[in-house]
Amino acid sequence: MMLLDAYLQTRRVSELLCEPLEVEDFVPQAVEFASPPKWHLAHVTWFFETFILKEYLPGYRAFDPQFSFLFNSYYQSIGRRAIRNQRGIYSRPTVKQVYQYRHYVDEHMKKLLSPSQLSKNINQQVKDLIILGIHHEQQHQELLLTDLKYTFGLNELHPVYQADFNLIKDHNNAGGWLKIDENLYAVGHQGEGFCFDNELGRHQVYLPSFDINKALVTNGEYIEFIEQQGYQNFSYWLDDGWSWLQKKKISSPLYWHKVDGEWFYYTLAGLKPVDPEAMLCHVSYYEAQAYANWKGMRLPTEFEWEVASQQLAWGKRWEWTSSAYLPYPNFATKAGAVGEYNGKFMANQMVLRGASVATSSGHARYTYRNFFYPHMQWQFSGIRLAK
Amino acid sequence: MMLLDAYLQTRRVSELLCEPLEVEDFVPQAVEFASPPKWHLAHVTWFFETFILKEYLPGYRAFDPQFSFLFNSYYQSIGRRAIRNQRGIYSRPTVKQVYQYRHYVDEHMKKLLSPSQLSKNINQQVKDLIILGIHHEQQHQELLLTDLKYTFGLNELHPVYQADFNLIKDHNNAGGWLKIDENLYAVGHQGEGFCFDNELGRHQVYLPSFDINKALVTNGEYIEFIEQQGYQNFSYWLDDGWSWLQKKKISSPLYWHKVDGEWFYYTLAGLKPVDPEAMLCHVSYYEAQAYANWKGMRLPTEFEWEVASQQLAWGKRWEWTSSAYLPYPNFATKAGAVGEYNGKFMANQMVLRGASVATSSGHARYTYRNFFYPHMQWQFSGIRLAK
Amino acid sequence: MMLLDAYLQTRRVSELLCEPLEVEDFVPQAVEFASPPKWHLAHVTWFFETFILKEYLPGYRAFDPQFSFLFNSYYQSIGRRAIRNQRGIYSRPTVKQVYQYRHYVDEHMKKLLSPSQLSKNINQQVKDLIILGIHHEQQHQELLLTDLKYTFGLNELHPVYQADFNLIKDHNNAGGWLKIDENLYAVGHQGEGFCFDNELGRHQVYLPSFDINKALVTNGEYIEFIEQQGYQNFSYWLDDGWSWLQKKKISSPLYWHKVDGEWFYYTLAGLKPVDPEAMLCHVSYYEAQAYANWKGMRLPTEFEWEVASQQLAWGKRWEWTSSAYLPYPNFATKAGAVGEYNGKFMANQMVLRGASVATSSGHARYTYRNFFYPHMQWQFSGIRLAK
Amino acid sequence: MMLLDAYLQTRRVSELLCEPLEVEDFVPQAVEFASPPKWHLAHVTWFFETFILKEYLPGYRAFDPQFSFLFNSYYQSIGRRAIRNQRGIYSRPTVKQVYQYRHYVDEHMKKLLSPSQLSKNINQQVKDLIILGIHHEQQHQELLLTDLKYTFGLNELHPVYQADFNLIKDHNNAGGWLKIDENLYAVGHQGEGFCFDNELGRHQVYLPSFDINKALVTNGEYIEFIEQQGYQNFSYWLDDGWSWLQKKKISSPLYWHKVDGEWFYYTLAGLKPVDPEAMLCHVSYYEAQAYANWKGMRLPTEFEWEVASQQLAWGKRWEWTSSAYLPYPNFATKAGAVGEYNGKFMANQMVLRGASVATSSGHARYTYRNFFYPHMQWQFSGIRLAK
Ligand SMILES: [Fe+3]
Ligand SMILES: [Fe+3]
Ligand SMILES: [Fe+3]
Ligand SMILES: [Fe+3]
Repeated sequence: MMLLDAYLQTRRVSELLCEPLEVEDFVPQAVEFASPPKWHLAHVTWFFETFILKEYLPGYRAFDPQFSFLFNSYYQSIGRRAIRNQRGIYSRPTVKQVYQYRHYVDEHMKKLLSPSQLSKNINQQVKDLIILGIHHEQQHQELLLTDLKYTFGLNELHPVYQADFNLIKDHNNAGGWLKIDENLYAVGHQGEGFCFDNELGRHQVYLPSFDINKALVTNGEYIEFIEQQGYQNFSYWLDDGWSWLQKKKISSPLYWHKVDGEWFYYTLAGLKPVDPEAMLCHVSYYEAQAYANWKGMRLPTEFEWEVASQQLAWGKRWEWTSSAYLPYPNFATKAGAVGEYNGKFMANQMVLRGASVATSSGHARYTYRNFFYPHMQWQFSGIRLAK
Repeated sequence: MMLLDAYLQTRRVSELLCEPLEVEDFVPQAVEFASPPKWHLAHVTWFFETFILKEYLPGYRAFDPQFSFLFNSYYQSIGRRAIRNQRGIYSRPTVKQVYQYRHYVDEHMKKLLSPSQLSKNINQQVKDLIILGIHHEQQHQELLLTDLKYTFGLNELHPVYQADFNLIKDHNNAGGWLKIDENLYAVGHQGEGFCFDNELGRHQVYLPSFDINKALVTNGEYIEFIEQQGYQNFSYWLDDGWSWLQKKKISSPLYWHKVDGEWFYYTLAGLKPVDPEAMLCHVSYYEAQAYANWKGMRLPTEFEWEVASQQLAWGKRWEWTSSAYLPYPNFATKAGAVGEYNGKFMANQMVLRGASVATSSGHARYTYRNFFYPHMQWQFSGIRLAK
Repeated sequence: MMLLDAYLQTRRVSELLCEPLEVEDFVPQAVEFASPPKWHLAHVTWFFETFILKEYLPGYRAFDPQFSFLFNSYYQSIGRRAIRNQRGIYSRPTVKQVYQYRHYVDEHMKKLLSPSQLSKNINQQVKDLIILGIHHEQQHQELLLTDLKYTFGLNELHPVYQADFNLIKDHNNAGGWLKIDENLYAVGHQGEGFCFDNELGRHQVYLPSFDINKALVTNGEYIEFIEQQGYQNFSYWLDDGWSWLQKKKISSPLYWHKVDGEWFYYTLAGLKPVDPEAMLCHVSYYEAQAYANWKGMRLPTEFEWEVASQQLAWGKRWEWTSSAYLPYPNFATKAGAVGEYNGKFMANQMVLRGASVATSSGHARYTYRNFFYPHMQWQFSGIRLAK
Repeated sequence: MMLLDAYLQTRRVSELLCEPLEVEDFVPQAVEFASPPKWHLAHVTWFFETFILKEYLPGYRAFDPQFSFLFNSYYQSIGRRAIRNQRGIYSRPTVKQVYQYRHYVDEHMKKLLSPSQLSKNINQQVKDLIILGIHHEQQHQELLLTDLKYTFGLNELHPVYQADFNLIKDHNNAGGWLKIDENLYAVGHQGEGFCFDNELGRHQVYLPSFDINKALVTNGEYIEFIEQQGYQNFSYWLDDGWSWLQKKKISSPLYWHKVDGEWFYYTLAGLKPVDPEAMLCHVSYYEAQAYANWKGMRLPTEFEWEVASQQLAWGKRWEWTSSAYLPYPNFATKAGAVGEYNGKFMANQMVLRGASVATSSGHARYTYRNFFYPHMQWQFSGIRLAK
């Protein structure tokens, strides 16, 4: 696909995702790690404005000079920025103004990428930056959904995003164990396509033989863990996980509510009965690890997962691995602000592999390394067992 | 005025105040003590629904049973309620739905109060409750403005509520000292009109003679305090006040910004240069007390203020007094939920007297006892000196 | 008594209070507001060294220049000081060194106050400062006991300070109501004796007639309040009080434990069954106010208490009044560091009147204004009702 | 060595370490992660009492039944225990009583381990538990020193533990790079000797070739980093590390003070000038990682370290590796309370390898996996570079 087409298509997906929203839904930030839709829409636009248009489109004038302050996420090299947990206080710019901002940037991107101008304006390095911007926007599309669900999930009215939209009813269509032999395997990105910096540095790892399950853990299986007092028995839990659940009074996956003895969960289609056959969703690493422990099994490492992945069905849930998020050998930080992309987060987080039902089409890769803090439940995250 | 007219007029004022707002402005809650406009509009409606319509209009059906959870402020007797610092997460109900709620309740109130039905439906006690509801809504009108200003004040875009709306440009039109002789004076509400429970129990107090200033402290006078290192010298401050300013890094009234050596402040008409002749606004009790201390003077007690008030111009700023908010002798808590109105707050707060430019017309009284915690700056509060 | 005798006797009392202690007991600080015995012993000594010896004894050399940093409590004018909640980390100076410090200062005070030197060295103003220092040390004697009890009270071993030492077994020896007529009364210190700055400014107050109880509330009476769900019913409580008890999970006076259905409390003689006839002790203002509310009565104001006090038995418990701690008319802050003594605390605290079984002999006065935050329970504080 | 001898010798070392202390020094807990000497002495004793004597010495009676509550560290399976951050409030039991407790347990351990009784009483499994207890006490010996230093380090008096005791003056006696070839290497404990559970499961890892430095980073080298604004430039830091240093206002290793332009550090021999040739000490992982980043190098993984270790001089500083603390393949949690030993901490921590000048003699192993949170500075931790 042409670069401009890819750009415009990605931009359009973001706006399609927002079509079911009321104006009010664009505003709230329920918690520091979850941003308002308005912010996501503007921030991904700011990325193109800041790293592409301001740098490479001659004569480009910023849409509004204050937007750099408002919509910078964490790029320290770009200057001061609004405090992360204060994104929900901004009623202005309005949603309409944010769409105008998007339109303004799109028009200038079209100019930059118009076939007649393309070769004059930009070289491969700039094209790579634009492709990075596209993947960045896709990441935020998923976050927009997960963050929206988090905010809606706190609302006792259980708002419906789309009535026919239930992202978590997926069933496994395979089961049993896949055996992988011990060997030296190569892991990490290879070939021509796009990848993030943290996937680079393809290298060898030695893996002893292991078994990995072809199915993800289901709600029904997890309910057993709950019913057998899994949340009340410290011996299954990591110490930090036990502190977390005690302090936060966690006793089920996120969005689960027990109503008159039956489990329900909030979905983007409203409050629904938990389907015992569907893949478990919205658990933290601590819960994934405790569940595996209770089963007498374990989670796969990210390398086991990557090696086995071509023989597995995956992509419905982000799958917690037992690997901490650390640099690959020879990991190199890129120069400039994009160097802040992935490397600086390599502490205290765990790797998730795969993709989820909320992941944008075309964004998934079997070498993709997602990462979150071990207590986080708000992603569409599930459990695959290994042994 | 007829009760229905008074009701409808008050309801209309609330909506007029919101006319300049964008939909997005109705949503954010910047801090626990400041609520979103949407919440104010719904909460005052909930008051009429809960205490009047559900009780006294036969056959009344609640607009939405979940609204009681969402829009109860602090009435423990009415049941559980949404957490106070989470009001900004609710994008739903939408603004439109809140206006529908208002309309629904208004229609039923009209039915209840229609001249033909009035005498059948309700007695004086119910009328008094409705009058309380009207004054309650007026209180929230002022809070709606102060809270909106707080949220807008944190926004670097300095949103303009109304371009010709500068609530804090008032000048004193009198000056010098008013001398009041020592005597036994009666204080507290008297006569027929409405008052809150905390003004009742008219009683005698003995006052030694005192002087009270006819003018409020101006911005220019306060700038002197700032420039003479008032915020850097602990000796002017109460110990709790000093801790507060150290911890919160306070060095000016709320909304003040020094830009290139000049003082500006955010107003509802946008960022404006500080007018040195205008009355100071948005100071805490701690600041008021420190300023008076620095001047070698003091703040008046609430009784001094009340006795002197008929000879003073007041009503532009809430005036901090040196009186703690405590019950009058013979203060009685009313029966039922309205008993939670004012009495339970009688600890840790200071009394403010007068009214402000944001106070609704007809809401002010010289016996009115407003009260806030001593660190709060977000009201339109100023300083009057005594000695 | 001669000034030197008064000085030496007070100094001796502090050390007598510490005789039952183990070396280890001098060290811990369990909570920010409670200081270690070692700190109290050194701080009161620092007061004499700083305000008397350094100023008025020619050639005096400080015992250790770093002690000013360590043992200044809150005198901002004296320079920087150790953080208040870190007093328990200091194992050094040792207890022995603190006693050497006391001895060193005592020897120099003797020199200053020796009959032959007295008139040469110091005038009345200095004598007044020394008297202030004596009363200051008496205050800390009481705090030493209350703080020690707090630390011991958290220790599951229930340490015994002295086996025959049960400070809270006092019974009322009078009962019924004392009626006081309405009148103008004068309150505040009068005459020659010592008083703190906050008692000065004798002035008139008008009091309506009232009744005040001759007895303090007993443990048995308070147990009724507990058993009738007093701690579970918000309607008796101030809003701030209710938040406090919810957050801190308070459901009884401090030091009370229910063991097998019976109430026990920790005393300085160890864990003892609660005596239902003894005066209640260790309640906060919030509890006192809620209890009075539940009884349909109220607490007296500090002025009612003062006026009635000569006809009452008092001195076993600090009695919470309904008066906020505020300056008397014409309250004047003293010049210099001693000006920080009482005035800067005049916000957010409530007045207690009387004295307690832990108050040093000779320290009580009927005009004495003690003050603490309304949530504090660790003083020997009780309840007297008015109506 | 006979088991009894090993036991008694370890027990004696703990007490030798405490000989320079004053009674007061045994009491304070400066911060949650650092325990008082008294607690360490009692806790290691509790370990022998709980896991050995109560289980295997017939007729053993606990020294004091409440000690289990007081001196359990984190063994959830043993029952409730004192809150970890409250260890400093316990003045009782006294130091003398803790020594009596030690003596009592030692006497019973002697009985259990007396040559004549040994074979009757205990089998190999019990012996292994005793050996675990010995290594446990050695671990606490190091912690006792690091925790004591932390408490003393906060004391402005800079207490001297021992005048000839400067644990951090060590110089490198080698330099340059050691090259290790790519290969499959086996890592993890092997052979007969003692090891902790987390070292078991010897397994193969594939390592690409790498270079590791023969010397640790010196103070002088680190001062360069400081002087070149290393603490002011976010680009060297992990995001969590940058937040940590901003929030805690960190700008040097722990215990460093700049006095009149010269660097000093607190040591257990008092405040000393920083020796630029000595090995750096008391840095966090964040600092180690940032320093390596600034140098354009990296930290070794724990496996690189282990493979290279036999050709390196080590043992003066715990060396931060770039490896997260995770289970080895086939890691198995032991049954019972000792199963809580190391496994449950496998989240959010980084591995340190080697040993320090504070490590007890005989406690170090090249397969030893120490682990701490990445912000912790209070261990004798340093930096070795790799590339
Ligand atoms: Fe982003
Ligand atoms: Fe209200
Ligand atoms: Fe003091
Ligand atoms: Fe231990």
